[in-house]
Order: sequence, then structure tokens, then C-alpha cells
Amino acid sequence: MQIGLIGLGKMGYNLGLNLLEHDYEVVAYDVKEDRVHALVSEGAKGAFQVSELVATLSNPRVVWLMVPAGEAVDRILHDILPLMEKGDILIDGGNSHYKDSIARYHRAREKGVRYFDVGTSGGVSGARNGACLMIGGDADVFPTIEPIFADISVQNGYYFAGGIGSGHFLKMIHNGIEYGMMQAIAEGFELLERSPFDYDYRNVAKVWSHGSVIRGWLMELTEKAFAKEPRLESIKGVMHSSGEGKWAVETALDVQACAPVIALSLMMRYRSLEDDTFAGKVVAALRKEFGGHDVEKHE
Amino acid sequence: MQIGLIGLGKMGYNLGLNLLEHDYEVVAYDVKEDRVHALVSEGAKGAFQVSELVATLSNPRVVWLMVPAGEAVDRILHDILPLMEKGDILIDGGNSHYKDSIARYHRAREKGVRYFDVGTSGGVSGARNGACLMIGGDADVFPTIEPIFADISVQNGYYFAGGIGSGHFLKMIHNGIEYGMMQAIAEGFELLERSPFDYDYRNVAKVWSHGSVIRGWLMELTEKAFAKEPRLESIKGVMHSSGEGKWAVETALDVQACAPVIALSLMMRYRSLEDDTFAGKVVAALRKEFGGHDVEKHE
Amino acid sequence: MQIGLIGLGKMGYNLGLNLLEHDYEVVAYDVKEDRVHALVSEGAKGAFQVSELVATLSNPRVVWLMVPAGEAVDRILHDILPLMEKGDILIDGGNSHYKDSIARYHRAREKGVRYFDVGTSGGVSGARNGACLMIGGDADVFPTIEPIFADISVQNGYYFAGGIGSGHFLKMIHNGIEYGMMQAIAEGFELLERSPFDYDYRNVAKVWSHGSVIRGWLMELTEKAFAKEPRLESIKGVMHSSGEGKWAVETALDVQACAPVIALSLMMRYRSLEDDTFAGKVVAALRKEFGGHDVEKHE
Amino acid sequence: MQIGLIGLGKMGYNLGLNLLEHDYEVVAYDVKEDRVHALVSEGAKGAFQVSELVATLSNPRVVWLMVPAGEAVDRILHDILPLMEKGDILIDGGNSHYKDSIARYHRAREKGVRYFDVGTSGGVSGARNGACLMIGGDADVFPTIEPIFADISVQNGYYFAGGIGSGHFLKMIHNGIEYGMMQAIAEGFELLERSPFDYDYRNVAKVWSHGSVIRGWLMELTEKAFAKEPRLESIKGVMHSSGEGKWAVETALDVQACAPVIALSLMMRYRSLEDDTFAGKVVAALRKEFGGHDVEKHE
Repeated sequence: MQIGLIGLGKMGYNLGLNLLEHDYEVVAYDVKEDRVHALVSEGAKGAFQVSELVATLSNPRVVWLMVPAGEAVDRILHDILPLMEKGDILIDGGNSHYKDSIARYHRAREKGVRYFDVGTSGGVSGARNGACLMIGGDADVFPTIEPIFADISVQNGYYFAGGIGSGHFLKMIHNGIEYGMMQAIAEGFELLERSPFDYDYRNVAKVWSHGSVIRGWLMELTEKAFAKEPRLESIKGVMHSSGEGKWAVETALDVQACAPVIALSLMMRYRSLEDDTFAGKVVAALRKEFGGHDVEKHE
Repeated sequence: MQIGLIGLGKMGYNLGLNLLEHDYEVVAYDVKEDRVHALVSEGAKGAFQVSELVATLSNPRVVWLMVPAGEAVDRILHDILPLMEKGDILIDGGNSHYKDSIARYHRAREKGVRYFDVGTSGGVSGARNGACLMIGGDADVFPTIEPIFADISVQNGYYFAGGIGSGHFLKMIHNGIEYGMMQAIAEGFELLERSPFDYDYRNVAKVWSHGSVIRGWLMELTEKAFAKEPRLESIKGVMHSSGEGKWAVETALDVQACAPVIALSLMMRYRSLEDDTFAGKVVAALRKEFGGHDVEKHE
Repeated sequence: MQIGLIGLGKMGYNLGLNLLEHDYEVVAYDVKEDRVHALVSEGAKGAFQVSELVATLSNPRVVWLMVPAGEAVDRILHDILPLMEKGDILIDGGNSHYKDSIARYHRAREKGVRYFDVGTSGGVSGARNGACLMIGGDADVFPTIEPIFADISVQNGYYFAGGIGSGHFLKMIHNGIEYGMMQAIAEGFELLERSPFDYDYRNVAKVWSHGSVIRGWLMELTEKAFAKEPRLESIKGVMHSSGEGKWAVETALDVQACAPVIALSLMMRYRSLEDDTFAGKVVAALRKEFGGHDVEKHE
Repeated sequence: MQIGLIGLGKMGYNLGLNLLEHDYEVVAYDVKEDRVHALVSEGAKGAFQVSELVATLSNPRVVWLMVPAGEAVDRILHDILPLMEKGDILIDGGNSHYKDSIARYHRAREKGVRYFDVGTSGGVSGARNGACLMIGGDADVFPTIEPIFADISVQNGYYFAGGIGSGHFLKMIHNGIEYGMMQAIAEGFELLERSPFDYDYRNVAKVWSHGSVIRGWLMELTEKAFAKEPRLESIKGVMHSSGEGKWAVETALDVQACAPVIALSLMMRYRSLEDDTFAGKVVAALRKEFGGHDVEKHE
């Protein structure tokens, strides 16, 4: 089976390898030509323009987008939709906002092109060796592409949820949970670090990965991280975020849900971006005003 | 090898079965005689008083306590310590506060008895089939009892952390992380329940258990729970707690750590115990006072 | 001086009385005719259509909008802008989103009409007797309407912040702070209610209103509320919200600010709308799955 | 009327001036002799030992303690209780834990000495010019000392709550609310600082102090702070805390109350004490492990 693959970043490239290993004929395109050459050397056909990719695929075409969420997706759609035909299928495997995916579905549908929104979890290794896929789109067409999902995911690792947008919505919530779990783990180690005991964190994460209630992939990764550096000495505690956690909190606000753990996980990430805060200055100044408490001064 | 087992509740009883399966000679005691008879029918020797248990064991004795945290442990210590001899070993496998364990260690040590604090995770099934054990106590004596831990835990499922109290401290933190993870998962499903999509939660938990970043035992249990009841219709959202989460937050306060996720996970449990709140009444009344907003009234 | 007033709800009506008391010639309009008649009986001129209101005012006209945020404002603009002339002034004194105000400013400006966004605080009594006004708009025109703000506010109770949108932005933040303060007060009384002591809450709020660090209008209102009902027996703790708190949290997310108190104040309001939660069910079910803990069941 | 005053720090010294102004005969003691001399120069009698202070007072004695919470109070009690007589009165006006005050009440009572726990709010200026006083202790004796409280507080600024410990409990909750309010204000200005507008914060705090819902002493102090330094440039956002906020959160845990705003206000203070966090390192390391996201490194 033939599949077009647009976007050969960390995730896309590894997905390409995964597809090739499952004997797909992959036609690959990326704005960076060296990424295309790299996947060609692994067995893919290369395309150096979107139009070339479309022309190389026989119809009905299946094209998988693995590009950064936002404008990049719209740029590709702008280029590719006019070239596609009724019955072709577009799959957005990136981290798009589910509302964008719903809008894009309708844009594609006008051309007779079917659009699937696919949340992809499992990180880079998952993309390579077996991902976790949450899928939204049209139920009547899904069976024709179901084998792809079955091939590139781990066993039981895909779920067709139904409504358009439901795949990316599910991925957004997944990431919200992920933020909460990571912050929970991190707070636990913060407390260990301040404890009167002298723990070997790698061994802590290891024992918690074997038989405990909190065992899981994140704990295994924690073990791996501590195996590399026992106290993460070289790493700064700056916690970046890439959008889905924020969307999850915004969604909580929109549906009037109380989701303090997800919200605070995100806000602690924001806090970590700052060396000092204006809020802190205000509290320090107020303590001085009413209680005469000393403030710490910048030199 | 002989081992005394005091406390045959859900955890203790299953630990007894686990020990018997590994060919330990288990001498079992519980205040409820029928619990003793039950384990005897599985191959244990029964004791109907603490003194009988001590007398039945040849020294150096190893006695494992699996009783509720708090007074129950002190009552047992009060009864058993005078009967024990230098070189005997006491293991507290329950959910004791680490500061209590440190104090009890010193009480035991005065008698020449060595005291180990062991946090046990993995739930009832772990106790039965392979637990996760976090161990504090004396390093010089640990090797003599290490085989027990090796036998009753899953592979790589025990960790001797060293200092007395460090086992129960680690379990306390484990439970704090557990609270945070559970709340994160719960908030995720809360958001799904309010989404415009019609998810099958069992399938959601299933796909998240296969290949996703948030896979782990808790997600597998989520799948199990939804398999029993698709929307948990019959269950009230009342979230009880048993002490360790509270201790974790108190510890955070004591060491001046910022642990919002663990703290909020606990506080949302407290909130779930209430139908209505006094805090809510105050806010509602204030909104009426300044803005003339209607309040909802009790009939 | 003449002023048009559109919207005679709780806030608008009292603002009308305030203006009349300061000898303004108020031309009043509301979709509900009885509201117009009511203010006419207090000395206003009535208008029963937007066009009538515009025709009654001599130019340059000053029209104050006091209608619910959102569509209602746009509907009025749709009707009134075509009737207005270069040099006329529109003031939105409601709780509009600052981004809407910026957009409306530009719509008005195309017609040569100047648009001011005014956040109004102080509640109903403030509208009547002296409000707190936060003002955004064009600095060159502001002096012509400054006397209005000076007249209807308390002393020192208006601030021209400058940029268009800055008035409503400031009001949004004001309300975020208000949410946090109210929740802080409410939590305090929640703790008193669970204390071993038998406090008279009215007296508590009274003493805290006199000389304490936390004295202020909200505490005075707390005293008033408890004076009416010593334990707020009849009031349900359902905390509604009207949009600005949510916008404040959304703004925090947009600017990557850590604002846990404002965020949690809002989320506790959402929580108060529910009798039971799906999140709670999930946690309860999970506790049962791993620990065999009992769940509470619906009858 | 005669009164002994022990502890002449910022609060105690100003309280002394307040008492002198109300024509009390103040016998003052402090471990630092220069503090004693200072108050003597204002009209007090000096005592350079606790025994001297006791001997100088005629009985029934009234002694007001204004020393740091904790050991300092116990040291004074250790020294003074043996010297006091039946009918004497001790007042602890400091920030003691209410449980300590209950215990000390009973210690005093054994000697026939009556003990009052008095929470003092209003900061240094309140101590000087009119404080807010929350009082617990014996109702039968309270009338004999009530005039003191009436004299040194602002009008309506004292409240006899009744049960022993209830005064310090109330002060603890007051401080919890104070933490929440300060954090709410601080978050508001944090959002202003990140807004697209160019606010003059002094004017913002000023307008919010006049007629707004959030007006109060803290907002007036905010205005004062910004008047000194428009953007608090020289102040570090390090937010210290002195114990009562922590006790309030611990109390919330003990009574199973959901008090997220007070809890988070405290935890944000703890967070502000750190330049970097271990929790942050863990999250950053995990993001790298599963997603290949870059971490920021220490040089």
C-alpha cells in the first residue's frame, strides 16, 4: 500500500521508518531536502514539492501530515487540497487543536477529500516502534485506512473514537493528564530531595516501576533519566510546554470543569520560566508595608 | 524459613498466601480468630495470642506486622516487645508514619530487637502475587531478611533505602504521587464527559494503556473499572483518603516545598465529602451583597 | 450636560440616578419600556428606540452603554453607529471583553465616533452613589468627558489608563483579584466553621473590618451578610460566575503567567455547581480496583 | 492602671507607646536593655529582669507578652509563672499557635493565673495607633481587662471570642485569608505587568482603593508601595512567611477542609525561595526522555 508522508521531523521521520518496516510504499516530503534524502536512503520515494508527492501517489491517495500544529498545517492544506481528488484521504497525525481539525475536515470535505484527525502518543520511540493512536473522522471510510493504524501502533494501540475532532480532543486530554502525572512525579522527587534520607533516585524510580501502584512508562523514563545523571545536576528546571496542556485548561474553563491538577501543572511550568516574579515583588513589598518585614534587594 | 505474621486483613492475608507459596513456615495471628483459621486452612500455623506466636517461633524470630497504622501498631509493640529477645527482628509492613517508625525503631533497639519499616505498594493483588517494597532499617541486619523481600516482591520490586524511617517515608511520597496521578486521570475523564464527543471510556482507557505516554497500572485499572460499568453510574464521587496523602502534604509544608498537585489532589478529596460548603455560602452571599446577584436557596 | 444612557438594568438604572443627581440631562433607553418609565419618573427624558435617543441628543453626542457584555453591545452598535456623527462619543461602561472593546473602537473610529471602554466597579451601590471607573480610550478626547467620570465616581475613583481596551482589561483583572479575595475570605470562614470554637461570624467579620490587615469592603459586606443570617442557613453554596474571572484566567494562560489563586477561585466556583463529579467517580472506582476500598453507591 | 509589658520589638514597642498614650503605667522589660531605655524615655518604668517587672507591679498584676511565638513564650512563662500569684493575669499578644496557648492556659491556671490569648492584627501602625484584637480566655475575668483592649484598639476593633485558644485561632485564620488576598492582588499585578498596556501601578492601586469592590487596607498599602518605587525594581520577589499561614493550611488538613487558595498562596511563597527546583529538573528530564525535547543546561 502506498502512503504519502509530509513532515519528516523527529516524529514524522520515525513514523516513516515504521511504515517502511511494515512494507508500505512511502512517498516522503519535507521542506528540508536533507530530511527527504535521509528517508529515501531508508527505502522511501522522495518528493521535493507537495505537487510532486501528489503526482507520485496513485488515487485514491492517502497522505499523512506530520507537521507542527497551526499554520504549517494550513499551509500544506492550501497547497495540497487543490491537487487532491474525491475519495482521497488526508490524515493529520500532529498535535492540532481539535477545533482546527473540525474546520479543516469541512474544508477538505468540500473537495470530496476525507479528513482524519489522529492524536499520536508514545513519543519518538512510539512513532518508530509502535505508537498509540486516537482517531476521529468518518466511520464509512475508516475501514479502508484501519490497516495502517493497526500496523504502526502497538497491539491494542489505536482507537477510532468517531466524531471528527475526537482524535485530537482525546490527545489534548491525554496531554493534560500527562502534565498532571509528570508534575505529581516531580513533586514526589522534590520531597525526597528535601527529606532527611539519602535516596538513590534511580533505585527509587526502579522499585516504583516494579509492582507499585504508580508504575508506568513515565516512571520507567524517570529511572532512565536518573541512570544518566543521579541528581540531574546539569539540567535546569525550566519546564517548557507546547500548547496542548494550555488547550486542555482552556477547555476545562469552557466546559466549567474543575481541573486543578491539570491547571496547576501548567502554571508551575509557566512559573519555571521566570527567575523572579512581579507577583513576588508585590507580596514582599506588602509585607514590608504592613509588618515592617525586610525585603531582599537586588544588588 | 519461619516467619510470624500479625494482622490478617486484606493485605496481611494475601501476604500470608504469598509467603506460604514461597515455602515459608508462617505463624499467623489476628485479633479475629476466623482470619487465623482461614490462613491455617491454607497451610499456616495459627496463633491466637501474641505470646503464642512468639513462643511458636524459634529465635532469632522474624515477625511481620501488617496492621492498621497508628495505635494498633503500638498495641502490638506493647505486647510483643517484652517477649522478644536480642537479635529478633520486627518488620512493620503497614502504612505507618515514618516518624512513628523512627520512634519505634528506638524502642525496639533498646531491647536489642531490630526494626524495619517497609512500605508496601501494589495493592491487594501485589501482596498476593508480588509486591513493591520500600525498606528502611539497619544495613548490618538487612541481608539476613533480604531473601524474604526478594521472594514476595515482583522482580526488581524491593529497594533497601537505608536509614530507619526511609521505607515508610518513600511509601508516603509514593502515595502522594498516586493521589496526583489519580486526580490527573480523573480530571481527564471529567473533561471527556463534558466534551461534545461520545467516547467509550473503556476503549479510551484501553488505548491509553497501550503505547501512550500515560500508560501504566492506574490506566489499566481505569480500563477495568469502565469495563464493569461504562459510566460508573452506580458509584458516588466521594473520594475517601487514608492518611498518607495528608502526611505527604504536611511533609511538603514542613520542608517548605511547593507541591500544588499533591496538595490539591488531597483537597479535592476533602471537597468531595461535602454536599454543600460553608465557603460556597459565603461567596454566594457576598455576590448578593455587592452585585445583587441572586443566591440559590434551600427549600 | 446631556448624556444618552442605554441599558437600565441594576447597574444602568442606578447610574442614571447618579447622573440625574449631578444635574445631567439624561436621555434613557432600554428594551424594557417600564425601565424607561421608571427613570423618567426620576427626571430623565425617555427614548423608546435607539433612533429616538440619538435624535433627542444634540451633537456632539455622548452615549453611555450599560448593557450585558457580548451580543447585546454589538446589537446596539449595529443600530446606533449608522446614526452617529463624527465627534460623537460612545462609552461602554459594561463588562465587555477588552479585545471586543478594541475591535469596537476601530468600528466606531471608522465613523469618526470615539469609543471609550470603562470598567465599572463598586457594585450597585457604587453605581448609585459613587463608582470606581477604569477608563481606556483616546487621550485627546478624554478631557471633554472627564467631568462625567469625576462626577459619578467617588473621590479619586476614576483612572484614565490610556490605551484602548485598557479600561476593560483593568476591570477584568480587578474581578480576578475579587474572585481570589472572596475565596480567601470564604475559606477562612470554612475553617472557622470546622473549628472547635463557637464564633459569632458577624462579630468576627466586624472585628476584621476594624483595624485588621484584611479590612476592606468585602469584609464589611461579610459582616452585613452574617448580620442577616448568622450562619447563612438558607443559602446554598452555589457560586455562579459571570465571565470576567474566566477571562482573567484565560489571559493568564495567554501570557504564560502563574496565577494559581485566581485560577483555583474560579475552579472552585465551577465545582460548586455540581452535586457529584465524574472525576470523583473515577478516583473512587480506582481506589476500589487497587486497594479494594469500598465505594459509596447511589441508592 | 498598671500593666507589665514584656517584649519591646517592633510590635511590643509600639504597643507600649499606645498604652502610654492612654495613660497606662507601663512597666517594660526586654532582653535588650536599650529597648527598655528607649521606652523609658517615652514614659515607661523600666525593668531589667522578669523578677524586677513582677516586683514592680502591684497585684493583681496584668502582664502583656509580646515576644516571638514558640520557645520565647515558654522561656518567659518558665521565669514568670513561679513569681505570679492567684488572680494575676497573663496576656499573650503574639502570634502563638492556638494549641500552645491552650496548653499554657492550663499551666497558668494551675497557679491560679488567668491566661488570655490575643491575636493582634493591624501591623506596626495598628499596634501604635489602634490595633485589631481577637481575644480568647476566661469570660469571668475578661471584664476586668476589657478596658485595656478598648483603649488600644480602633473603634469596634476587639472581639472576645470566648474559648481559650480562640483568639490565636482567629488570628491564624486571619493570616491565612491575608495570604490569599495578598497573592490575589499580586497575581493581578503580575497580569498587568504582562499586559499590552502601560499602566501606572500606583494609579491602578489608587483607583482600586476608591470605590471598587476590592478596596481595603492591603490595596492602600499597594498604592503606597508603588508610590515609593513605580515597578518595585529593587525588590526581589522572595516571599518569606512566618508560620501562621502554614498553621492555617495544617489546620485545613486536620479538619479535612478544601482551602486551595490559602494552600497555594503559601506554596507560592515556598516556590519563591528557590532559584531552581528539583521538580522542574524532573519534568524537563522526562520531556527529553519521551519526546526528545531539549533541556536547558547549567553552564
